[in-house]
Amino acid sequence: MAGGIGSRFWPLSTPEFPKQFIDILGCGRTLIQLTVDRFKGLCPMQNFWVVTNAAYVDIVREQLPEMPVNHILAEPAARNTAPCIAWACWRIKQEDPGVNVVVTPADAVVMNPEEFRRVIGNALQFTEKSDAIVTIGIKPSRPETGYGYVEAGDVVGGEICKVKAFKEKPRLEVAEQYLRAGNYLWNAGIFVWNVHTITEALKTYKPNIASDMERMKTDADVQEVFPQCEKISIDYAVMEPAAADGKVYTHPADFGWSDLGNWASLHDKLQKDSAGNGAVGKVRLYECSNCVVHAEEASKVVLQGLDGYIVSAKGDRLLVCKRSEEQRIKEFSQE
Amino acid sequence: MAGGIGSRFWPLSTPEFPKQFIDILGCGRTLIQLTVDRFKGLCPMQNFWVVTNAAYVDIVREQLPEMPVNHILAEPAARNTAPCIAWACWRIKQEDPGVNVVVTPADAVVMNPEEFRRVIGNALQFTEKSDAIVTIGIKPSRPETGYGYVEAGDVVGGEICKVKAFKEKPRLEVAEQYLRAGNYLWNAGIFVWNVHTITEALKTYKPNIASDMERMKTDADVQEVFPQCEKISIDYAVMEPAAADGKVYTHPADFGWSDLGNWASLHDKLQKDSAGNGAVGKVRLYECSNCVVHAEEASKVVLQGLDGYIVSAKGDRLLVCKRSEEQRIKEFSQE
Repeated sequence: MAGGIGSRFWPLSTPEFPKQFIDILGCGRTLIQLTVDRFKGLCPMQNFWVVTNAAYVDIVREQLPEMPVNHILAEPAARNTAPCIAWACWRIKQEDPGVNVVVTPADAVVMNPEEFRRVIGNALQFTEKSDAIVTIGIKPSRPETGYGYVEAGDVVGGEICKVKAFKEKPRLEVAEQYLRAGNYLWNAGIFVWNVHTITEALKTYKPNIASDMERMKTDADVQEVFPQCEKISIDYAVMEPAAADGKVYTHPADFGWSDLGNWASLHDKLQKDSAGNGAVGKVRLYECSNCVVHAEEASKVVLQGLDGYIVSAKGDRLLVCKRSEEQRIKEFSQE
Repeated sequence: MAGGIGSRFWPLSTPEFPKQFIDILGCGRTLIQLTVDRFKGLCPMQNFWVVTNAAYVDIVREQLPEMPVNHILAEPAARNTAPCIAWACWRIKQEDPGVNVVVTPADAVVMNPEEFRRVIGNALQFTEKSDAIVTIGIKPSRPETGYGYVEAGDVVGGEICKVKAFKEKPRLEVAEQYLRAGNYLWNAGIFVWNVHTITEALKTYKPNIASDMERMKTDADVQEVFPQCEKISIDYAVMEPAAADGKVYTHPADFGWSDLGNWASLHDKLQKDSAGNGAVGKVRLYECSNCVVHAEEASKVVLQGLDGYIVSAKGDRLLVCKRSEEQRIKEFSQE
């Protein structure tokens, strides 16, 4: 899934060139490339599928040149994750009706890809022998109020547990309870299932989307039908009702995941100097501390005397802003 | 005179594209264009001469397209102001042996060009009838330690005074005495004289430079001779010894002059918002105060929570620095 428009990292990320296509960690690979890289040994290149906005198809082709071009599905409009996942799974089913599928966002990071492969491998083994719907549950490290949670129940085998319920983004006190309870996991939007399982689940829980998918035979059908699909997340469309029916499982995991949803989480993941500055690009810092800087294109950036600032430069756009004010960046970018 | 390399405004000004060729005030005209503009009515375009480094000839041609191309003198090496002025005056003398000349740096600003024209007009009237060497003396507004001073003596006619002496850049206490005394003026490097007067003065006080000029008949001569000329300012070469001989005069003036020698003086000259920010470019400021910002090329700059900073962006270079640390910018640009 590579359709996001990531406005919280302006001007680093823009609707023309969003976060998933940026080397946000300064490691030489963009987030979508890192996402593909971490399946090395689990999934050959010809088995990758990318669903993205039509405007980003050329970027995907450029960044993932080894991927089959007909596996890039260009959404004519953004309809949230349920139609996005449904479309890919219907197409995959045409090619191989019994195959296992891993669904993942293209704009998250995983600091321990080896552990990621181990966890995904376990989940794939589980879905090979069952019609389970598996969501990867990230063990929480803090009472985060920005994510939905998965409430894990009994262990059913190995590390996999039954899911009791999905929980909306909680208030802080609730998030703290979740953290103390120990069986609440972050819903990272990473799913594992057999393609038969998910298409049947959509037929059961969202027959309108399933029937839209059946109608999408040609490119012209896609242009006509997809923008009319119900705009709904896979969580609401399938995960929650399926969990209520006892069909959803989770694999708790701890592989250094972050959705890089904001500058704070990027700062967290960047290597930092002794003063707590994390910087990507040719950046020289004098008397700076606790800053997060991204200026990968700049030939020279000099910062002096800044404590706790975000500095982001891309093309001919520049942002300097206190880290404490980062929730205003979207507003800044639009005014 | 347009040969400076202005390293104190990095990255706005660089050796490849220095200050005199930049629209530093954000008014739509570069400093050299403003310098030419302010002679409107005093001097026709075909009478302008520019002495600059060979590397900047194309920039001068582009920015002053109406000027005769053969009036752009390309210094093969920087030899300070005496050889620069001498070369131009020798060339002017060839075209018109009795003409009056105004010498001015190309990178200063004058906020009141009308008053500038009045003062220069007075000085030209004076040099038409005499072999006086006239330097324009700027009435000081503060005890500036960064400029040389002219000590004015008796009024000799109209507003023009005899010059008693030239003074080096003073210590602060001395500068304060000068300000109190009232007859000390800033030496702005703006001179008025008859071309015969200055060439004779160079023959008297710097015969080596005068004889170098006599040898510079062809381009090849310039390439050979000019780089060997004594590297000396016109102040040391001519003004000081001529003043000692009683031949130098000054016209005290108050036309909003600034050499824009640093960010503080630019901040001083820019129009400021109610929080004391002066900004050039498409800049949005939130909770900022006392900043000076120059980002003329950027399509959008957002700054939040900065008090007393310099922000300068040009091409793919960026500086953010406390205004109190601006003397370190040259060092920052080189490290």
